[in-house]
Amino acid sequence: MKAKIYIKYKEGILDPQGKTVHNALESMDIKDISCVTIGKYIEMDFDNISKESAELITEDSCKKLLANPNTESYTFEIVD
Amino acid sequence: MKAKIYIKYKEGILDPQGKTVHNALESMDIKDISCVTIGKYIEMDFDNISKESAELITEDSCKKLLANPNTESYTFEIVD
Repeated sequence: MKAKIYIKYKEGILDPQGKTVHNALESMDIKDISCVTIGKYIEMDFDNISKESAELITEDSCKKLLANPNTESYTFEIVD
Repeated sequence: MKAKIYIKYKEGILDPQGKTVHNALESMDIKDISCVTIGKYIEMDFDNISKESAELITEDSCKKLLANPNTESYTFEIVD
């Protein structure tokens, strides 16, 4: 059982790393991109537990540690 | 049109940030996790282009800038 967690900045929060990467891509002649945002992709592997427990643990981890509630939003999915 | 890009360390590459987060979660009494790995989640928005062009641009961006070919692997999907 594994959780895939996607964390990104909330709408309206400045993402300087994304802007920098966007500029770098343009300077490399990679065009047609209107916006780049950079967040975190976290994978958590679990021991033998149910999908329900995995969801609870993941939700708890995101709330208490992984995502900054002021500036970031998160989504996740549990896969086998 | 938007690309969602997931970048993570290749199998066998040490991920100290993941280890640190794993330890922190355990010290907060969040158990049953066997492994945590931390990668990047990048979203790229495109101007009006076809799905095929978006795939080419994303592949190009990952190869030339976003992922370190020595230590990281990437996957992506194109969504509307």
